[in-house]
Amino acid sequence: MTEIIILGAGNVGYHLANKFIETPDVKLVQIYNRNIESIRGFKKTTPITDNLTHLKKADIYIICVTDEIIPQIAKAIKHKEALIVHTSGSTPLDVLNFHTFYGVFYPLQTFSKNRKINFNTVPICIEVNKPEKLVLLENLGKKISNHVYHINSEQRKEIHKAAVFVNNFVNHLYYLGEQICKNSSIDPKILYPLIRETGKKIETLTPFEAQTGPARRGDIKTIQNHLNNLQSNNKEIYKLLSQSIADTYGQKL
Amino acid sequence: MTEIIILGAGNVGYHLANKFIETPDVKLVQIYNRNIESIRGFKKTTPITDNLTHLKKADIYIICVTDEIIPQIAKAIKHKEALIVHTSGSTPLDVLNFHTFYGVFYPLQTFSKNRKINFNTVPICIEVNKPEKLVLLENLGKKISNHVYHINSEQRKEIHKAAVFVNNFVNHLYYLGEQICKNSSIDPKILYPLIRETGKKIETLTPFEAQTGPARRGDIKTIQNHLNNLQSNNKEIYKLLSQSIADTYGQKL
Repeated sequence: MTEIIILGAGNVGYHLANKFIETPDVKLVQIYNRNIESIRGFKKTTPITDNLTHLKKADIYIICVTDEIIPQIAKAIKHKEALIVHTSGSTPLDVLNFHTFYGVFYPLQTFSKNRKINFNTVPICIEVNKPEKLVLLENLGKKISNHVYHINSEQRKEIHKAAVFVNNFVNHLYYLGEQICKNSSIDPKILYPLIRETGKKIETLTPFEAQTGPARRGDIKTIQNHLNNLQSNNKEIYKLLSQSIADTYGQKL
Repeated sequence: MTEIIILGAGNVGYHLANKFIETPDVKLVQIYNRNIESIRGFKKTTPITDNLTHLKKADIYIICVTDEIIPQIAKAIKHKEALIVHTSGSTPLDVLNFHTFYGVFYPLQTFSKNRKINFNTVPICIEVNKPEKLVLLENLGKKISNHVYHINSEQRKEIHKAAVFVNNFVNHLYYLGEQICKNSSIDPKILYPLIRETGKKIETLTPFEAQTGPARRGDIKTIQNHLNNLQSNNKEIYKLLSQSIADTYGQKL
């Protein structure tokens, strides 16, 4: 039985806590959050606290707070034999180096409170400072996911950057596409099959092979046509991404 | 039985031809392509030609060629009672106005030769110049898809533009994310669950609600960190999209 404590109940902490509560061989000993109200819902199953001096003992402390305050929260943990991990894609392992055993447990996924996640498919990127704690963390990952990767801090930073491109920026393009539809009184749902297929396509073709559209073809007339009635910011995005696609395929725009 | 002829066997024509061949109550009378070699594979089931003066008679001629040569191909069709449609998202209905009956049959999807499409879910956007041909075209759409929409030329142009954002640009971001992983010796497949979830998420949350990440949070430190080791073109893309996200949520970068 691995005993764990989760510190911070933002999007990541909230989903991890819910997952670990239902996971066999893991005991969620406590949840800490600076705002006790937002973890009140866990009270039935798990002790909660908003006081860092009341932290219980556990094998692994999982810190799920904003990057900047990870060290500050970690300092409150007084149990020297425990493994202290953070869950941040962009924060190096070393911010925890005042502890004896520390590591990273980074679930590579987009989490929103209102959407349940199937953890089995979520890649868990782990890293530890001392090899003797690797199996402990790896086993914790394997209890919730079929995809546990050993990823060092430098690689994790690159993965996180790639994730910004394929998630944050992609979702924003969905938003812009939706706005374009709404401005012409078209139900944005008309785009959903295309969005789904775009995501599924790259499981059988590489993104390089999967690319279609005016910039890929060097179809300047259509591009100009689109640019003519785009607003300033979206026009810049359209131009820059079209140019980047054209460059990728040696097309002249 | 609706008799149709497909002109042009690029990505769209190829997939439409294959779909109509297997569709009951539709007879694919002929396929035209200027390069006969690339339609040789259809010969077993359907007459093929590379000669526009040899076009047979049909109820509907579906033009699936590059936007610029749509009128030129359409002029070769001599059957005055037939309905002549193109399949282009960005071409107005009126480029066919030298015919008596003309229209648009625009499947809103990304087509690549090597990937089979489930047409049932593909939105078909139709438009005709004369109402008496609407039912004919609508029924053809309904034979292959559960989603047939009446969309005028102005709306279709906007949908096509939105499609460039949610498909062409999104796929290019997949490509850039993949490159970032490869440059750090990480298998890009690690991104796939995130890509899948990003696409599925907006079926339960709006893209506005679904947004996460540093620009959404106004996390300048992480953004700066990512920008530090991005190459010139990708850096511009990162900056512009992050700024656009930040503007959407009133964050200052």
